[in-house]
Amino acid sequence: MEGFKIDYIEIIGIVAAILTTASFLPQVYKTWKTKDVSSLSLPMWLIFFVGILFWLVYGILEKSISMVLANSITIVSSFLMLYFKIKYGKRQ
Amino acid sequence: MEGFKIDYIEIIGIVAAILTTASFLPQVYKTWKTKDVSSLSLPMWLIFFVGILFWLVYGILEKSISMVLANSITIVSSFLMLYFKIKYGKRQ
Repeated sequence: MEGFKIDYIEIIGIVAAILTTASFLPQVYKTWKTKDVSSLSLPMWLIFFVGILFWLVYGILEKSISMVLANSITIVSSFLMLYFKIKYGKRQ
Repeated sequence: MEGFKIDYIEIIGIVAAILTTASFLPQVYKTWKTKDVSSLSLPMWLIFFVGILFWLVYGILEKSISMVLANSITIVSSFLMLYFKIKYGKRQ
């Protein structure tokens, strides 16, 4: 198991990844339920989605399972937020 | 310069960090101007803020300048969003 160690630094990284990945779920749920997107920024979700796409590619190239897992979930969350903003934004 | 190389994979990571860090700025600006926080999720910004705090500590312990830089900016953005949500949320 040389070179593969989960020390306390890696545990902090894993907690960080779980928190930032999970954080978008209540926003997706709230927007899906209320269909209210008035105070959401379209540029934010557009730039964020493209940024997460780059993080996902980076994680794949770096062969980091935790980065690929976290960013695979976040790319779905950010795509949904972008879709909601464009879809429901037209009505407001 | 052995062990310190910026290859194309690192460039993808740097682009990813710039995009996700920059993405929150239009949201902070929009919320600051409009004071409208109705469609923002409080749990999202609370969990996200704590998550970024963990990423910042992780970056410091890993001695990653790009992680420390990106997360120092994002912790300010997410703190402002949390502050706006709590402050302006009371009025609505």
